[in-house]
Amino acid sequence: MAEERIWTAALLVIGDEILSGRTQDRNIAQVATWLNIQGIRLAEVRVVPDVRDRIAEAVNALRAGNDYLFTTGGIGPTHDDITVDSIAHALGVPVVVHPKARATLEAYYANRGGITEARLRMARVPQGAELIENPMSGAPGIRVGNIFILAGVPHIATVMLEALSGRLEGGLPVLSETVGGFVPESEVADILASVERAHEGCQIGSYPFFRDGRVGANFVVRSTEQATLTACLEDLVTRLRADGRELVPGGI
Amino acid sequence: MAEERIWTAALLVIGDEILSGRTQDRNIAQVATWLNIQGIRLAEVRVVPDVRDRIAEAVNALRAGNDYLFTTGGIGPTHDDITVDSIAHALGVPVVVHPKARATLEAYYANRGGITEARLRMARVPQGAELIENPMSGAPGIRVGNIFILAGVPHIATVMLEALSGRLEGGLPVLSETVGGFVPESEVADILASVERAHEGCQIGSYPFFRDGRVGANFVVRSTEQATLTACLEDLVTRLRADGRELVPGGI
Repeated sequence: MAEERIWTAALLVIGDEILSGRTQDRNIAQVATWLNIQGIRLAEVRVVPDVRDRIAEAVNALRAGNDYLFTTGGIGPTHDDITVDSIAHALGVPVVVHPKARATLEAYYANRGGITEARLRMARVPQGAELIENPMSGAPGIRVGNIFILAGVPHIATVMLEALSGRLEGGLPVLSETVGGFVPESEVADILASVERAHEGCQIGSYPFFRDGRVGANFVVRSTEQATLTACLEDLVTRLRADGRELVPGGI
Repeated sequence: MAEERIWTAALLVIGDEILSGRTQDRNIAQVATWLNIQGIRLAEVRVVPDVRDRIAEAVNALRAGNDYLFTTGGIGPTHDDITVDSIAHALGVPVVVHPKARATLEAYYANRGGITEARLRMARVPQGAELIENPMSGAPGIRVGNIFILAGVPHIATVMLEALSGRLEGGLPVLSETVGGFVPESEVADILASVERAHEGCQIGSYPFFRDGRVGANFVVRSTEQATLTACLEDLVTRLRADGRELVPGGI
């Protein structure tokens, strides 16, 4: 079988509110999960503050090293929303008002107090950009080159991702199966390593936890091929049970 | 008054489980909050996979650009725990067994099945490292130069941070006050920008939300000086109320 091309994406989370600890990020996990379904692997995440040069530097590093770059945050109407300006700066293109975004915003705000200069900020895009639909709140996401600019509010990011579903070229999605138990990972480390070595194209991750006063771990087997995945999982379960371990399919 | 030196830290989150979307990160917010109390600003976060060269590259970029670098994840006993090896590689030093870590692990596991080769992995450190105490589960955190290597399991990272509290040199902590309301941020964007401009040394962040079918926003004022912060917040509240906005102190 031919080697499958691996498609990668990076995610740039833009926002002082994440770096200050005030807001718990919810976008990393949802973008990662969505990318997996598209057959694209999330290869790196960076979180940077609302500072133009820091954003631009990260954008240029990440868009060059990956097939796709997603950003979240900083596309609202206020003075600290500088994502569009920073990305235009990174690309060396001017910021322009997108006519369709303007029309969408005018319609959306028609019975919500009308369009204002602040609201019009959300129609500004780097030159050459297309829009990503946002049925939730009017202000669109933006695609420019391989960069996808999404909202920071998680459920608005969700609807923008839905609008992109199935539209990006990707490879085989990564499949995974989990098995867990009240098993100290340090007691089965040799088994995990040995099973992984025996199944090419599989990875086994071990994720420890404490619960109800006891230690345990979930073991996640990953592969892009179902048959490989199944064989590796079965081998792992057999070896762990032979070692006297009680396991819960699907994990704990 | 003399310009206050700003101390910065970066955080490197190491782990395929975050990039796959399987695990929701909890360490960014807790490290950010803890750093603020130490008077250190979290300036950047990166999340990278369990791949030695990707970890080493990020470590070298981030330790050079900041006063401190914190890492979470990848210091357990299993084959996918490669943080220590990757950081030693980045620093160009060998990995050695730390005698005190070995003694601690031997004592911890004495009535938990005894020490094994896998468990001894957790006594390995980059040469020249000191230990960070872990009263929770035996395996210590590690300090080497300006790098602080913490566990990925959030509540173990918590006790390691507690062990470091007050021990790192920092500047003035960033203070913040929040006020919120069912106020569309696009209607008050001008007020936010104008108040921020009028109060040097203050930043105002605007964080929109949807709740109970209504849009609103929390406005967070930040400064390292209480008097500056209070003046800016009072000005903001006065201007928003004069604009007919109902506000909730502390935010919604």
